[in-house]
Amino acid sequence: MKRFMLTVAYDGTAYFGFQVQKSHRTIEGELNKYLSVLTGEEIRVIGASRTDTGVHALCNIAVFDSETTIPASKLAYALNRYLPEDIRIQKSEEVDGNFHPRHCDTRKTYEYRITTGEFPIPTKRLYSCFTYHTLDIHKMREAAAYLEGEHDFKSFCATASIVENTVRTIHFITITEQDEDIIIRVCGNGFLYNMVRIIAGTLMEVGNGKIPSESLPHILNAKNRTIAGPTAPARGLMLVKYDFLA
Amino acid sequence: MKRFMLTVAYDGTAYFGFQVQKSHRTIEGELNKYLSVLTGEEIRVIGASRTDTGVHALCNIAVFDSETTIPASKLAYALNRYLPEDIRIQKSEEVDGNFHPRHCDTRKTYEYRITTGEFPIPTKRLYSCFTYHTLDIHKMREAAAYLEGEHDFKSFCATASIVENTVRTIHFITITEQDEDIIIRVCGNGFLYNMVRIIAGTLMEVGNGKIPSESLPHILNAKNRTIAGPTAPARGLMLVKYDFLA
Repeated sequence: MKRFMLTVAYDGTAYFGFQVQKSHRTIEGELNKYLSVLTGEEIRVIGASRTDTGVHALCNIAVFDSETTIPASKLAYALNRYLPEDIRIQKSEEVDGNFHPRHCDTRKTYEYRITTGEFPIPTKRLYSCFTYHTLDIHKMREAAAYLEGEHDFKSFCATASIVENTVRTIHFITITEQDEDIIIRVCGNGFLYNMVRIIAGTLMEVGNGKIPSESLPHILNAKNRTIAGPTAPARGLMLVKYDFLA
Repeated sequence: MKRFMLTVAYDGTAYFGFQVQKSHRTIEGELNKYLSVLTGEEIRVIGASRTDTGVHALCNIAVFDSETTIPASKLAYALNRYLPEDIRIQKSEEVDGNFHPRHCDTRKTYEYRITTGEFPIPTKRLYSCFTYHTLDIHKMREAAAYLEGEHDFKSFCATASIVENTVRTIHFITITEQDEDIIIRVCGNGFLYNMVRIIAGTLMEVGNGKIPSESLPHILNAKNRTIAGPTAPARGLMLVKYDFLA
C-alpha cells in the first residue's frame, strides 16, 4: 500500500464545495468516484482545504492510499482522462505513509479578485466579485496591514463555525491592481471558516469609505463577527498556493 | 422614432452565436426578447459582428429603432435588469437615424488567448485554448508579420463561406505573454468567416514547429483553406474593441 498526493485545480462554480456530501456534487466526491474507477479499489481521499461552494483552486491537496501499480507521476494523466473538465490534477506524487495534509505546518495563499466598473463584465463574472464602487486601494492597504501577524480572528470567522482556537497568523496581505481588477492576496498558516471572504468584504467596505481603515484594530479586538464587514461572494476566491513546511 | 446603439459584452459559452436562430438561444435573440419586454414594442436589433457559437465579446454593437421615452444613456441600466448575467450592456446612446453598424468603416480588434502548460487550468478553460506544446513566440511573431497589411485572405476563410471578396486589411497583429498565457491581438477593417480562429490555429502550428514561419507568404498565395493551419477553438476568441471611423 502506498500513499499518494494529488495537487488539484478546479473551477468551483458547479460544485457544493470540496467536502463530500451525500446528495450533491463535490470535488472530493468526484475524486473518490474516479479514483475508485481508475484503481478498482474503494478510494477515499483526505483533502487539505475544505473550500466552500463556488470557491476555486489552483492547487488544493488530496491524499489517498492505494495498491495501484500506476507510477505516481502518471496518476495525474490517468485520472485527468476520467475527470470532468472543471477538475484537473496538476501533479501526482508518492508521499510518506504517515503524511496527513491537515496535520502539518502549511502556508496557504488565497487570492480574492474584485472587478470595479460601471457594469459587470460577463466573462469575469465566475471568477471575480463585481462592484460599482470605486475602491481606494491605499486605504485598503492601510487596513490590511493591521491584519498581518498573529491575531485572534474571531471577528473574521463565520458564526456557524464551532472551532475553539480562533488565533491564526497572516504572513502577509498584498493588494494589487491589474487593469480594472483589484487582487487581494492573503498568505497565512491557516484560515477560519469564511475568514478570507470576510477579510475581502471588510477591505471592500474600507475601499468604498464605509469602514475607516483605522478601525481595523477595534474590529479585531471586538472578537465579534457582526462588527466586521460582509462576507464577500465565493466566486471571487481562489486557493492559489499551498506549501508544506519542513 | 429614435435609433439607439448598444455596446454589448457577453460570455458566449451558453449561446449559439450572436445571430438570431429559431430554436437556439443566441445573443441577438436575447436582446430582441428583453428589449421588446422593456419597450413594449417588437424590437429587432441589427448586430455589427455575428460572432460564432462560444465566442465572447467585450464590445459587440447592436442598433435598433424605438419610440421609448427611456433616456438613451439609461437604457443600459434598464436592460441589464432583464438580461441574463452572461450578457451585459456596457453603454447605450442615441445615434443618427441612418447609422448602420455593418455599412460603415470600422476597425475591429479580436484577442485570441492560448494557455500553455502540462495540464489545463479549469478556471481558464472557457476563455482560452489550452495546448501541451511549448510555443515559440518569436517564430509566431515572424509569421504574423506576413499577415499584416492588405491581402487576399481566402486561405484563412472557412470553406462554408460564400463571400466573394476575400481581400481584407490587417492593421496589426501583436503577440504578447501574460504569465502562462499567450495573447494574439488582431486588428483589422473586417474579418472573413473564422478568419481570426484560422490565423490563431496557423500561428499555433508555427509556434510548435509544424509550420515554418517563412511559409506564410506561400499559404496566403495558395488561396486555399486546406493549406493553412486548423481552426482554433471558439472559446479562446474575444471581440475586444470596435471603432467606427469618421
